[in-house]
Amino acid sequence: MLTRSEDLRKYLTGFASSFGYVYTDTQDSVFFTDPRYAEAAKAALKQTSIAVEIAKDLDSVLRFVKTKKVKKLAVPFERLTLPEYDALCRARLKPVDSMPAFAAAMIVKTDGEIAAIRRACKIAEDGYVALLNELKEGMTENEVAALLEYHMRRCGAEDRSFETIAAFGKNTSVPHHHSGQDKLACGMPVLLDFGCKVDGYCSDITRTFLFGKKGAPDDFTEMYEAVYGAHMAAAEQIRGGITGAQADEIARGFLRKKELDKFFTHSLGHGIGINIHEKPVIGPSGKDVLRDGMVFSIEPGVYFEGLYGIRIEDTAALLGGKPVSFMKTDKRLTVL
Amino acid sequence: MLTRSEDLRKYLTGFASSFGYVYTDTQDSVFFTDPRYAEAAKAALKQTSIAVEIAKDLDSVLRFVKTKKVKKLAVPFERLTLPEYDALCRARLKPVDSMPAFAAAMIVKTDGEIAAIRRACKIAEDGYVALLNELKEGMTENEVAALLEYHMRRCGAEDRSFETIAAFGKNTSVPHHHSGQDKLACGMPVLLDFGCKVDGYCSDITRTFLFGKKGAPDDFTEMYEAVYGAHMAAAEQIRGGITGAQADEIARGFLRKKELDKFFTHSLGHGIGINIHEKPVIGPSGKDVLRDGMVFSIEPGVYFEGLYGIRIEDTAALLGGKPVSFMKTDKRLTVL
Repeated sequence: MLTRSEDLRKYLTGFASSFGYVYTDTQDSVFFTDPRYAEAAKAALKQTSIAVEIAKDLDSVLRFVKTKKVKKLAVPFERLTLPEYDALCRARLKPVDSMPAFAAAMIVKTDGEIAAIRRACKIAEDGYVALLNELKEGMTENEVAALLEYHMRRCGAEDRSFETIAAFGKNTSVPHHHSGQDKLACGMPVLLDFGCKVDGYCSDITRTFLFGKKGAPDDFTEMYEAVYGAHMAAAEQIRGGITGAQADEIARGFLRKKELDKFFTHSLGHGIGINIHEKPVIGPSGKDVLRDGMVFSIEPGVYFEGLYGIRIEDTAALLGGKPVSFMKTDKRLTVL
Repeated sequence: MLTRSEDLRKYLTGFASSFGYVYTDTQDSVFFTDPRYAEAAKAALKQTSIAVEIAKDLDSVLRFVKTKKVKKLAVPFERLTLPEYDALCRARLKPVDSMPAFAAAMIVKTDGEIAAIRRACKIAEDGYVALLNELKEGMTENEVAALLEYHMRRCGAEDRSFETIAAFGKNTSVPHHHSGQDKLACGMPVLLDFGCKVDGYCSDITRTFLFGKKGAPDDFTEMYEAVYGAHMAAAEQIRGGITGAQADEIARGFLRKKELDKFFTHSLGHGIGINIHEKPVIGPSGKDVLRDGMVFSIEPGVYFEGLYGIRIEDTAALLGGKPVSFMKTDKRLTVL
């Protein structure tokens, strides 16, 4: 098995690196990297059975692989580029897809992985609480996003887990809004979608609140209650053994009763781990069966184009057959 | 020609997007995206001749391509994954590599692109100056990196152009140090490698300075002068018509005379544009001939393992046959 993908290298070795290949077979595990990272890799992998070797490119790694007299090589097809595929063909190694095996292994987290995600959730919320104390009228979305990222790191995060979304007013109606120069004003709905990395693992959280009540959309409170209800229905009713599609339907069905399901334009959630988006799929097409140790977001939302949107998201783990949220901040409507 | 790469989509359309395919031929240009982004894409591309269509996956894009009765399709081989290659084969489209054409076109910047990079340089330096006023003993590398990113965005950046490197003390000797929990103390060398994005274009800058003189490494000033000399030699002697390897040799030769070339463990620079690392290669293997409109970093450095390192980097454009730096902050040794 061979991979150069950053997330798969981290998963196989526990070591975060920005360049390298990991080869494993029944006897050997070797981390190939270039001279710039070799010392750091050796130090980090000292306690493991993983050897560190220098290799500048795929061809030199494949020369090593050929010494093992293997004919087939498992590689993640969806990450393999055409030049890499050609290199395998030249080396007369028949590629076999390793991606299903990675996905199956990574979908259930170990206790250590869950602990890292739990810490990443706590630090993200610590940063969020620090931000709320500093929010002022006239701040731009971009400034608020940057300030939240700063506070998460000051609270102990290695980095953000994705580009923070800060949306004000009608921008909240765009689920993937890119934070811009719009300014915060009284009565605006504010949507913050953010997370951070700790020990290489991600957290993901969204909070929507009102920056002052005066001037807020008339039906905001009513719609907020609907999304909150959808969130809590999912959080309370999801069980081990149901599929991602069934989990999604708990929240979607709740919104359907209020004729709001057509405004819920994305999936209920996604798996979270080394990557911010992983298996299981928690959406209408989600075939994965939920099992203990899976970590995923629960994030129903409604979006009224040109008006406003609301999303309430926690990161949760399935433990003892039920979702356990890692979030402590209030999910009830907050008016600052 | 078809591509789904984010940087190539931005280059072809001028529109920054997080999902989509761009198809172009002699008659048509079409931006395919999913329903979530279609409205934003239509608004952004209104003034262009690029049509917007909805497509959820590569197969539906290829069905459109097939209506054009083409037999060959240019795609960037190094970005093409194995499943994508298979989809092309199934559609009986013979792939031809478009990457050389993209690289050749993107290596020389238009006036508009250069203006964006110049703004990104100014904003990065504005953020840096704001940071210097707030540096305090006891701050961690991670906190300083986060604070610098915050200030760049407060000064108008869309985002960082790469993960900021903040290194203190002996960590400066690791060219690609990952900012951690080490704390700032008097006499420490500080290396900051950072940049931001403006209108989708990147800046890149490194400054190394002393946080107080007391306790600083004995030979730091002497080594700083050497790196400064190497930087200025390159900045003054690089000319249009020489290769990236010849440009690199100007700085490397300067350090060789001081027997410091073996501590200069990376290339002199790299092209900068939509991507933080692009063509031309400015290093010992650089075959690209430098021409007006190319934008690249000039960043000689020396690294003494376990002790300290120094790197001085500007972003510059080749204009009128000579490099013009976009940086205004002092490159002489600064002692805070």
